[in-house]
Amino acid sequence: MLTNWINSSDSYNNFILSSRIRLARNLKGINFPHKLDDDNAIAVIDKIERGLSGYEYSFKKIKLNDQDYIDNNVLLEKHLISNDLIKFSTKSACFINEDQTISIMANEEDHLRMQFFNSGYNLKEAFDEAMKLDDFIEEKLDYAFSEKIGYLTTCPTNLGTGMRASVMMHLPALSMTDQISKVYKALTQIGMTIRGLYGEGSKIDGNIYQVSNQITLGVSEKDILNNLHAIVNELVDKECNVRKSLFNDFGIEIKDKIFRSVGILGNCYSITSKEALEYLSYIRFGIEEGLLSSNICMNKILIGCQPASLQSDVNNKMNSKERDIERAKFLRNSIKNIEIIDKN
Amino acid sequence: MLTNWINSSDSYNNFILSSRIRLARNLKGINFPHKLDDDNAIAVIDKIERGLSGYEYSFKKIKLNDQDYIDNNVLLEKHLISNDLIKFSTKSACFINEDQTISIMANEEDHLRMQFFNSGYNLKEAFDEAMKLDDFIEEKLDYAFSEKIGYLTTCPTNLGTGMRASVMMHLPALSMTDQISKVYKALTQIGMTIRGLYGEGSKIDGNIYQVSNQITLGVSEKDILNNLHAIVNELVDKECNVRKSLFNDFGIEIKDKIFRSVGILGNCYSITSKEALEYLSYIRFGIEEGLLSSNICMNKILIGCQPASLQSDVNNKMNSKERDIERAKFLRNSIKNIEIIDKN
Repeated sequence: MLTNWINSSDSYNNFILSSRIRLARNLKGINFPHKLDDDNAIAVIDKIERGLSGYEYSFKKIKLNDQDYIDNNVLLEKHLISNDLIKFSTKSACFINEDQTISIMANEEDHLRMQFFNSGYNLKEAFDEAMKLDDFIEEKLDYAFSEKIGYLTTCPTNLGTGMRASVMMHLPALSMTDQISKVYKALTQIGMTIRGLYGEGSKIDGNIYQVSNQITLGVSEKDILNNLHAIVNELVDKECNVRKSLFNDFGIEIKDKIFRSVGILGNCYSITSKEALEYLSYIRFGIEEGLLSSNICMNKILIGCQPASLQSDVNNKMNSKERDIERAKFLRNSIKNIEIIDKN
Repeated sequence: MLTNWINSSDSYNNFILSSRIRLARNLKGINFPHKLDDDNAIAVIDKIERGLSGYEYSFKKIKLNDQDYIDNNVLLEKHLISNDLIKFSTKSACFINEDQTISIMANEEDHLRMQFFNSGYNLKEAFDEAMKLDDFIEEKLDYAFSEKIGYLTTCPTNLGTGMRASVMMHLPALSMTDQISKVYKALTQIGMTIRGLYGEGSKIDGNIYQVSNQITLGVSEKDILNNLHAIVNELVDKECNVRKSLFNDFGIEIKDKIFRSVGILGNCYSITSKEALEYLSYIRFGIEEGLLSSNICMNKILIGCQPASLQSDVNNKMNSKERDIERAKFLRNSIKNIEIIDKN
C-alpha cells in the first residue's frame, strides 16, 4: 500500500521526501505516440483503459483537454503528469488512483508511462506495486518487447527495463557548500543523475533534488534499485557530515537563518516562489535538525505554494503579483503553528 | 518641563524623535580646554559645579575616568555626551539631571557644552530651559563674551550665539529614494546641515537624521529657531509626499518589507547593529503609517540595541558575535507585542 508523499511528514529523519518508480511501456504493433494521429491516439487510450479495468485500485481517467489550464498544472506541480502530456493534450490522458500514488500517463513519450509514488524512502514498495500493475496489464495487452533488448521505447535511453527509480531528497548542506556540483559529476559517471524539484537541477528550487538512474538497458531492475540505494545512503551520509561541520563552523548563522525564515514566512505580505522555496528549505532544515517542531507537513506546503495549486485553492486566475500576495497568505497560515524548540 | 525622548513615543505623528538645544560657553580669563593641564581642568569642573548648585534641578556629576568603558558608552549612545568627552576623560566631566533631559559637558571642546533634550518636536521648551539655566549660571560665573561677537568659543564655527538647535527625524522615504542627498546639498547652502543618528550622516543608521543650524554668528537665537522650524516643516511635507507616492507605486513591496521586518526582528537569533537599525526603521515606518500597533516605544529599542546599552543591560562585556546574539534576544523581546493592524 503506497502512501501519498505530499500529505506525509515521514521525510524528516532521512531527508528523503518521496520515492518513485517509473515504467515506460508501449503497445505492440502500434506507432509510438508522436506518430499517431488524434483518432489512433484515442484508440490507444481506450486500450489502456481496458487494460487497467478490473485492477484492485480504480483509476480516474483525466482528459487534459477537458480540464482547464490550472487543473492540469496542479497535476504537474504534484509530479503526477509531465509538461509533454499537457503539450499534446489532444492525444493524451492520464489515469490516477484515488490516493494519487499511481499515475499512468497515456501517450506521453511512450504509450504508457506508469508512475508509482511513495512517501519517504520506500522504493521497494513502489517497485512491488509497479510490478504488480505491470503484470496485470501485460496479461491483457501486448507490450512491445524484444527478447534481446527488453521493453521497446520511443527514446533509446529508456530501452530494456524501461524503468527509472528516483528519490527526492532535501540536501541543503551539500547545496550551500556547492558540493552538489561535484555530486552531479560523480553520479553522471556511474549512470545516475540528479535534478531539481521540477527537473531544472538548480539550487533555486529549495535545495530539493531528484536522484535517479540514467541507464535502463543491460541492467536488471534489481541492479537499478541496489545502485540507487547505495548512492542514496552515501548522499545521506555526506549531507549529514557536511551539516555537522556547518553547524560547528556556522552554527549561529544557520540557526539565525532558520529562525528568520520562520519569521519571514510567518509575516510576509508578498513572496515569490523562489524566495518561498528558499525559506521553506531552511524551515525543513530546522525541523530535520530538531530546532523546530515538526507538527506541520512541509511537503504539502512545498506543493501548495506553487502557482497552479495556489490558484486552484482560491478558484481564481491570478497574475504573478496577485499570486505572490496569495502565496504569502497561504504561507503565513501554513507556518503559524510551527514552534521554535530551542531559541537559546 | 522637558520629557526624556528615549522613553517617549510621541514621535510617530510627525516623524520627529527628539529636539535638542546645545549651548557652547566658556569661562572668562581661563584657557580653552585643550590648553588646560589636568589640575586647571579640574578647577574648571569645580567652578561649573558651583555654577550649577542651587538650580531647580539637581545634577549628578560624572567623572568619565571613574566609570568603565561600557557606562561611558551608554551615555554616548544616549547622546548625553560626546566621543571627545570620553577621549579627554582625565580633564572632563558631565552633569546630568535625573530625567536625563539636561546634560552639561565640562571641558569638551568648550568649558561648557550644555544640552537640553526634549521628546518629539518641542524645540521651544528646550530653548526656554536652556535660557533659564544659562541665565542662572551667568549670574554666578563670568562667561567669555564680546559685545561685538557674542559668546567666545574654541572653534569659530560656534561663535556668537554658541547655540545649535537640532531635531532628530525619521525620513525613510527620502532616504530610500535617495532624495536625502539633494536635501543635504540644499541645506548646506542655507547654513543648515543634516547628519546621521550618530553623526556619520549615512543612511545605514536606520534612516534617522539630525537636522541642525551650522551658523551661530550674526543671527539671533530666534532666527535660528525660526529657520530650523521652516526647514523641519518642509522636510516633514517632503517626506509625507514621497511616502504617498511610494505607497502608490510600491505599496505591496513596502507593506511586505514592514511585515517581514516584524518577522525578522521577532525571530532572529543573531543580528548586527546595521541590520537591526534597518528593520527598526521599517517597523517605525509601519507604526507611523498605521500598519502596525504603536504600543511599543521605538526610541527605547533604538538606543537599547546599541552595543554598550546591550552590555550594560546584562552587565557583561561581550565580543561582537556575543553582542549580535544578545541584540537578537533584546529585539525579540522588545518586538514581541507589536501587532500587524491590517494584514490584507
